[in-house]
Amino acid sequence: MGIEIERKFLLQSDDWRMAVISESRLQQGFLSTDPQRTLRVRLADGEGTLTVKGLTQGATRREYEYPIPAQDAAQLLDELCLRPLIEKTRYRVPHAGLVWEIDVFFGENAGLVVAEVELGDEAQEVQLPPWVGAEVTGDPRYYNANLIRRPFSAWSNTN
Amino acid sequence: MGIEIERKFLLQSDDWRMAVISESRLQQGFLSTDPQRTLRVRLADGEGTLTVKGLTQGATRREYEYPIPAQDAAQLLDELCLRPLIEKTRYRVPHAGLVWEIDVFFGENAGLVVAEVELGDEAQEVQLPPWVGAEVTGDPRYYNANLIRRPFSAWSNTN
Repeated sequence: MGIEIERKFLLQSDDWRMAVISESRLQQGFLSTDPQRTLRVRLADGEGTLTVKGLTQGATRREYEYPIPAQDAAQLLDELCLRPLIEKTRYRVPHAGLVWEIDVFFGENAGLVVAEVELGDEAQEVQLPPWVGAEVTGDPRYYNANLIRRPFSAWSNTN
Repeated sequence: MGIEIERKFLLQSDDWRMAVISESRLQQGFLSTDPQRTLRVRLADGEGTLTVKGLTQGATRREYEYPIPAQDAAQLLDELCLRPLIEKTRYRVPHAGLVWEIDVFFGENAGLVVAEVELGDEAQEVQLPPWVGAEVTGDPRYYNANLIRRPFSAWSNTN
């Protein structure tokens, strides 16, 4: 079991692209989007993972993550996960001693770009990179589990 | 990934008790009871497992099972799983070349006893032990995921 503590931001420029140290394509799907017990399947760089997450409180969430065979992950994504799947490219960008992850979404969430940083504790001071914009930590619209119920492409009319 | 093929029966006598070769206490809970993508946490004999099951078709069901640390299983059961948990003692009883599993339920499902046998394929011939009664394979009331939504103790009035 782990505790996941992360802060999430929108982007205000593309300058992060110059500092990318790695990128990977992620495909993920959900077997449950119940916010009290979310279940996520992920396939990235030929590795499968199954992740159970509890309720988010502040920037903190219980997280149980297990490696599973890539073939199982592919089958679970193809056959059992709720639709749509989430597809994104994740870029890693170091800044001031932390590694930021910038997720660029495809498919029904195309147009959405989010930057996340994982912290040791909620009080940890974070030096924000110049390319991040508004903080959206705790905004449920940006939870990946909600991006399948209400993808970014459906936001424009009411937000 | 595996395919689970099993038949399930009620019991018509206690004679199976004389032939028990092992017993274990099982505690299990569900993170999702959606029949298309059930997610079960189990703790038995100090071993944790996380199991994803697809839709049951006939006596067959897709099943993805992964070992997880017992401590994770205990935490998931205590804190994240839907209520009530399912508690049962599982007895193993060999008969005519197959090993039957007899589940004796406790708690809100006390009084329920079910015998299951796992098969290689749906057409496999099974020599029924004299102590089994009516077959309930495919009867959704007996799915463990449904025994938390509608426990055996709540059946008496309408069944």
